[in-house]
Amino acid sequence: MSPLRPALQEIPADVVALCDYERLAPEFIAPQAWAYLAGGSADEHALRENLAAFTRWQIEPRLLAELRGAHTRLTLAGTELAHPILVAPTAGHLMIHPDGEKAVALGAAAMQTPLVLSCHAGTAIEDLPRHPGAPLWFQLYLRADARSFLETLVRRVEAAGATALVVTVDAPVKGIRNREQRAGFKAPASVVAVHMAGAPPFPETQSAFDPRFIATFPTWDDIRWLRSITRLPVWLKGVLSPLDAVLAREAGCDGIIVSNHGGRTLDAAPSALEALPRIMDSIDGLLPVIVDGGIRRGTDVFTALALGADAVMIGRPVLHGLAVAGAPGVAHVLKILRSELEVAMVLAGCPTLADIGTTLLKQR
Amino acid sequence: MSPLRPALQEIPADVVALCDYERLAPEFIAPQAWAYLAGGSADEHALRENLAAFTRWQIEPRLLAELRGAHTRLTLAGTELAHPILVAPTAGHLMIHPDGEKAVALGAAAMQTPLVLSCHAGTAIEDLPRHPGAPLWFQLYLRADARSFLETLVRRVEAAGATALVVTVDAPVKGIRNREQRAGFKAPASVVAVHMAGAPPFPETQSAFDPRFIATFPTWDDIRWLRSITRLPVWLKGVLSPLDAVLAREAGCDGIIVSNHGGRTLDAAPSALEALPRIMDSIDGLLPVIVDGGIRRGTDVFTALALGADAVMIGRPVLHGLAVAGAPGVAHVLKILRSELEVAMVLAGCPTLADIGTTLLKQR
Amino acid sequence: MSPLRPALQEIPADVVALCDYERLAPEFIAPQAWAYLAGGSADEHALRENLAAFTRWQIEPRLLAELRGAHTRLTLAGTELAHPILVAPTAGHLMIHPDGEKAVALGAAAMQTPLVLSCHAGTAIEDLPRHPGAPLWFQLYLRADARSFLETLVRRVEAAGATALVVTVDAPVKGIRNREQRAGFKAPASVVAVHMAGAPPFPETQSAFDPRFIATFPTWDDIRWLRSITRLPVWLKGVLSPLDAVLAREAGCDGIIVSNHGGRTLDAAPSALEALPRIMDSIDGLLPVIVDGGIRRGTDVFTALALGADAVMIGRPVLHGLAVAGAPGVAHVLKILRSELEVAMVLAGCPTLADIGTTLLKQR
Amino acid sequence: MSPLRPALQEIPADVVALCDYERLAPEFIAPQAWAYLAGGSADEHALRENLAAFTRWQIEPRLLAELRGAHTRLTLAGTELAHPILVAPTAGHLMIHPDGEKAVALGAAAMQTPLVLSCHAGTAIEDLPRHPGAPLWFQLYLRADARSFLETLVRRVEAAGATALVVTVDAPVKGIRNREQRAGFKAPASVVAVHMAGAPPFPETQSAFDPRFIATFPTWDDIRWLRSITRLPVWLKGVLSPLDAVLAREAGCDGIIVSNHGGRTLDAAPSALEALPRIMDSIDGLLPVIVDGGIRRGTDVFTALALGADAVMIGRPVLHGLAVAGAPGVAHVLKILRSELEVAMVLAGCPTLADIGTTLLKQR
Repeated sequence: MSPLRPALQEIPADVVALCDYERLAPEFIAPQAWAYLAGGSADEHALRENLAAFTRWQIEPRLLAELRGAHTRLTLAGTELAHPILVAPTAGHLMIHPDGEKAVALGAAAMQTPLVLSCHAGTAIEDLPRHPGAPLWFQLYLRADARSFLETLVRRVEAAGATALVVTVDAPVKGIRNREQRAGFKAPASVVAVHMAGAPPFPETQSAFDPRFIATFPTWDDIRWLRSITRLPVWLKGVLSPLDAVLAREAGCDGIIVSNHGGRTLDAAPSALEALPRIMDSIDGLLPVIVDGGIRRGTDVFTALALGADAVMIGRPVLHGLAVAGAPGVAHVLKILRSELEVAMVLAGCPTLADIGTTLLKQR
Repeated sequence: MSPLRPALQEIPADVVALCDYERLAPEFIAPQAWAYLAGGSADEHALRENLAAFTRWQIEPRLLAELRGAHTRLTLAGTELAHPILVAPTAGHLMIHPDGEKAVALGAAAMQTPLVLSCHAGTAIEDLPRHPGAPLWFQLYLRADARSFLETLVRRVEAAGATALVVTVDAPVKGIRNREQRAGFKAPASVVAVHMAGAPPFPETQSAFDPRFIATFPTWDDIRWLRSITRLPVWLKGVLSPLDAVLAREAGCDGIIVSNHGGRTLDAAPSALEALPRIMDSIDGLLPVIVDGGIRRGTDVFTALALGADAVMIGRPVLHGLAVAGAPGVAHVLKILRSELEVAMVLAGCPTLADIGTTLLKQR
Repeated sequence: MSPLRPALQEIPADVVALCDYERLAPEFIAPQAWAYLAGGSADEHALRENLAAFTRWQIEPRLLAELRGAHTRLTLAGTELAHPILVAPTAGHLMIHPDGEKAVALGAAAMQTPLVLSCHAGTAIEDLPRHPGAPLWFQLYLRADARSFLETLVRRVEAAGATALVVTVDAPVKGIRNREQRAGFKAPASVVAVHMAGAPPFPETQSAFDPRFIATFPTWDDIRWLRSITRLPVWLKGVLSPLDAVLAREAGCDGIIVSNHGGRTLDAAPSALEALPRIMDSIDGLLPVIVDGGIRRGTDVFTALALGADAVMIGRPVLHGLAVAGAPGVAHVLKILRSELEVAMVLAGCPTLADIGTTLLKQR
Repeated sequence: MSPLRPALQEIPADVVALCDYERLAPEFIAPQAWAYLAGGSADEHALRENLAAFTRWQIEPRLLAELRGAHTRLTLAGTELAHPILVAPTAGHLMIHPDGEKAVALGAAAMQTPLVLSCHAGTAIEDLPRHPGAPLWFQLYLRADARSFLETLVRRVEAAGATALVVTVDAPVKGIRNREQRAGFKAPASVVAVHMAGAPPFPETQSAFDPRFIATFPTWDDIRWLRSITRLPVWLKGVLSPLDAVLAREAGCDGIIVSNHGGRTLDAAPSALEALPRIMDSIDGLLPVIVDGGIRRGTDVFTALALGADAVMIGRPVLHGLAVAGAPGVAHVLKILRSELEVAMVLAGCPTLADIGTTLLKQR
C-alpha cells in the first residue's frame, strides 16, 4: 500500500481550488488507503452532511466598507495566529507520501499554520521540524485503564514542545467503516503509531459491549484527571451536544472542537456546522471554539466564523495536497484557503475576523 | 421460479452491511420472485419513504458517558428478549432458498431473535426447529366470514408453541403491485400456504367493491373475537393512524405494530417511522410498539427506539441474507444489525435501550 | 403526421398502470404530434408540478372499517355518475388514432364516464355515439367579438344532446409552447376543428398586446352572457385563484374546474392540486369543483377528493390509451384508475366518496 | 481566442427561447472565452441560485380581466422606456463576435432596449451607433485612488451622450473564478478596454489584503464624490443588503441595481431575486430598482416586477444571441423575452406593469 505514483514536482496550472486536489489525489494513493482516507462510516450520511451544511448558509455582502488595515490575525487560547485555519489531526500520512508528517509539518509551517499531530502518526513528534509561528499541538485518545501510559505520553509531547493537547472523545469504538472494510484496508505493517508504543493492548473482542472493552472507555473523570496533570491547554474534540460543551467547561477544558470526526464515527450524527449555533448559545462565549468537517472554501471558513467559531481545522484537503504535491501541495492548499477567506472578507466588507458576524448570514 | 444459483457456502469478505446482501441477492433469486420480494405497490412511493424517513433524523451523540453494564435486553409483552430486533412475517421463503422457513428460523435462533411466521409460509409451524431464547410468533389475517377456520388455526399454532399472534389488518385487498404484475409473477404451485389449507375460498372477482368480497373484510368486531378466543398476546399489525392505535387498545390488543406493510399496500401511505411520533402520543405508553419498514442500519433501530418504539422488525433484509447465504446469511444480517446498534449506543452514550430517548434526536 | 403504427389489437400483459400506456404511446404517435400532446409551455414547470403536487400528500389509512355497501357514485351538478372520473377536453384525437373522438367516446361510455368534447375536436358532436350513463359535455372558448357564432354553436350542441358546457378561460392567448415549436408541430390540414367552422378569424398578429387581438379576449361579461342564453350547466375551466372562484359563482356558473390547462399555458402557474385548498375555502361548498392535471393513480383521485374536489378529469392518459389500443385502451385506462380508486378506498377505510376527507391526509 | 465559427446568417427555426441560444452558443465561442462568459465564481452556487430562485415563485393567474389598452411602458429615473428589459454591462463582446458592442447596440436598439456599456468594452462609446428610443448608459468601477482619471472618464461619456451611470461596487477584488482559471482564460491582447486607457495601474499583488491594493477600494465617500461631479442619474449596482440600499439613497444615488454580479463574485451570496423583497421593504418605494441575474423567461421578468423591481437587466443571454446570430440574434433574444412577458401579462390578467403585484405571487 505504497503511493501509486510519486507526488508531482510542479503543481499543475489547473489546480486552483481544494476540490482540484481532491480530484487528482486518487491517482497518487493506493485504493485501500484512499478508501480509508476518503470514506466515512456506514452510508456516509455524516460525511456528506459536512459538505452540504455549508450550502445552506448564504453571506449577504456589505458594500463600500472601509477596509484599511485588514488582517486575519487572532488569539486562540493564548496563542497568536496569523489566520484561523489549523491542520486537523489525521493518521496514515506515510501511506500517502514517503515524507509523511514531516512534509505536512513543513507545508503547514510555510503557511504559519498550527499542526495538530495525531497520536497515530507514523513520525515521532521529536522528529518533526519546528517552525516559529507554526505551533505544534498533539492529539490523543484517553483510556480509563491506561493513565500511567497516558501520563508518560503527555510528558513526552510536553518535552517535545507541543503547545496544546487535543483530546478526541467521540470514538471510544471505531465507526462502522464499511468503505474501508469493503476495500480490505488494513494499516500497513510499515506504518507504526510510534507514540502508542507501550500502551496496554485492547481486549480482543468483536462486541462493543464486551465489559472488558467498555472498561477502557474514558469518562469525564478522565478529562478532569488529564486537566490535572498538565499545564498545556486542553481542547475537547468531538463535541456535538450543547450539554457536553457546558460539561467540557466545567471539567476545565480550555476549548472545544465541534466535530463529527469527519463523518467517520456515528453516521447519523449532525454535521459540525449544524451543531455549532446551539453550542455557541450554550457556552455564551466562555470557551474558544474550533470547527472541523467539510471546509473546502474560504466562504466556508467565513460561514463557520460568522456562526461563532474562532477557527477551523481541515483534515482531508491537507492529505490531498500531500498526495498530489508533497509539502508544497500542503502549503498550496492552505494558501488557497486563506486567500479565498481574504477575498470573501473583502467582498463581504469585513476588515477583521471580529467583523464576521451572524448578521451577515442568511439561511437558505 | 427456483433460485438462480445456490446460496454461498461462505460469506464474502466485502459483505459487511445489510445493503451488501441486498446488492447480491438478485443473483440468487429468480427475476419474478425478486419482483415480488423487492417491489412495493404502484409507483413505490411508500417503499422509498420507508428508507427516506430515517434520513430525516439525526442522533446528537453524548460524550464520555458511563457505559459499564451496557446491554440491549428488553421485555416485550411479557417476553424477555436479548435485543430489540425481530424477524417480520414474510412469505415465499421456499422460492428463495430450498430450506425456506427452516433456514430463517435457524438463522434467527442463532441470534436469539424472535421469528414471526407468516400464515402464507410454505413450511408448517410444526416442522420448524424450536430454540430456547428465540420465540416463535405466528402472523395471520382475519376474515369476517371464516371464524371457524381461524379458530382452528389459532388452536393449531398455540399447540405448536407459538407465543404470540400478529394480526395483519392493513391489507383486506392486495395492493396495486405493478412491479409484480409486469414481471408476470405468480406464486409457484410448489409453494403452498400450508396453514391456509381448509380456509374458505375468496369469491372470484376483479372488483375491490364486490359485495361478496367486502363481506370477507374484518372489522374491529373480529379483533375482539380473536382476543376472546386465545390467551396468547395479540399484536395488531399495520397501524398508521393514532386513532386506530387507541382503538387497538380498546379492543384488547396487547401491542401494535406500526407498519405500512413494507410499502406493499397503499402507495400513498406514510412510512411507519413518520407515523410513529403521533401514535406514541396517542397511546401514552399504555401499549408496547414495534415498528417495521426501512430499517437497514443500527442507527435506524436507534432512531425508531428514540421515537418511542420498543422494538423493530426487519423483513426484506432477512430474505436477502437467506438468498445469498442461507441460515448463516440470516444470522449474519441479524448480527450486523445488532452490532451496529451497540456501536451506535456506545457512540451516543446510551448503556441501555431505556437511555435511547427523543432528546438525542434532531430533525434534519 | 399520421400514427406511426396501428394501435394494438390486444393489450399487453405488462400494461397495468397509466404510466405503462404513457411509456408505450410514443411508439404509436408521430413525433410532432407527441410534442404537441406531451409537451407543456416554456420550461414545463407547470407540467411537472401537476405530477409533483400529488407526491406531497400522504393518505393516513384507517383500519378495520365497516365497508359494506361501498360504492363510488356521486351527483355532479344534477347528474348521477357511477364514479368521479371524467374525460377532459383535448384536441387532436384524429392525429392519434383513425377513429379519433369516436373511439374515445366508445371507451369512455364502456366505463360510464362523461366525455367533455373539445370545440377543437375533429369529429362533429352529432357523429358521436351516445350511450346511456355516459353524459356528453361540450367545451368551448368564449370570445368578446363572436357572440353570434357562439350562440349558434351552443344551440347546436344543445340540440346534439350535450348536457353541460365547459368554458375554458385560462388561454386567451396560447402558451409559450416551445416543445411544439422545436418539433415543428402544425395541426395537419386533415384534422379540422369542425365545430369552429364559421367562427370569425382571429387577427393575424405576432403580439399578444395587439389591440385587435385583445378585442377578442372574453371578460366576465361574456360569462354572464353565456349563462343567460342557455339552460345547460356552465362549468368555468381554468380557475386557480380563490378570488376567481368567488367571481365564477357570482357570474352564475354552476361549477368550476380547477386546472392549469395541463401545464400548457402559464408555465409559472401553480398546479391545480396546490391551488385547490384555498379555492375550497373561498367557495365554502357553494359550487361543485372538478380538478384536472397530473392524475395518474387512484390514490391521486383520492387525494384530490380528500382536498375537497367532487370529481377529477384526465386528459393525456386517455390519449395514451387511445394511441396504444384504441377504444379498448381508453376503457382500460379508465378501468385501471377506477379500480385503483376502489382499492385506495378499501385500504383507507372509506366506503363512499363522502368518507374521503382531509382528516385522512397528511402533508409530507 | 477568436470565435469558433461565424455567427449564423439565419436564425434556425427551433431557436424559440433564450435557452436555445444558450445551448447553441458554445459552438460559436472559443472554449476559454466560454469559460469566462458562462462561468461563475468558485463552485458556482451563486450562478445556479440566480436561476433556481425564480423556480420558487409561482404566479397565480387571474381570469377574464379587462385588458384593453395593455402595454409595457414605464418611466425609469426620468426616462421613458417601451418595456422593462435592459442590456446589462458585460465585457468581451469582441471575443464573441467581430462586431462586438456595435452588434449588441444595434440589436438592442432594434428592440428599443437601453444598453449599459461596460467600462471594459472593447469599442469606444463614441463609435457606437445611437438610436432614438434606446438610451445608452455607461457602467464604471470607482477607485479611491483615481478620481482624476474617473472624472475625465465621466466627462467623456457625458459628452458621448450616455444618459445614466451605473457604478458597480460589488467587486473591489475579482471573484474566485475557478472555471476561468482552469480553462486558462486570459483576455486576448486584441481586446482592449478602451475606456480605461490612462487609468493608474493596480499594484501587482497576489493578496486581497495588500495595503496598496486596499488603498484602491472605493467607499461611500467615493459614491458621494461621483454624485457631486455629474448631473447624470447614478445607479448603484451590486446591492444585496437592505442596509446598503438605504445607504445608497442617503448617498444620493438615483436608483439601485440588485445583483450578485451574475454569480461571478462572492459564491456564497444570495441571488438577487432572493435579496429583493427585503430590499424593497427597506427603501419603501423611494428609489427605483433594477434586478439582474438569472432572468431567462418572460415569467421571470414578471416575477421580478411582482416582487417590486421596476425593470430587469439581462447579461449572458444577450451574449448567447450575439454569438449565434450577431445583432439579429441580440434583437431576437430581446424580442422573445418581451413577447413572453406580454403573454404572461395576458395570462395573469395584467394590462400594465403597474398591475403586476405581489398578490399574484405564491411561494412554492
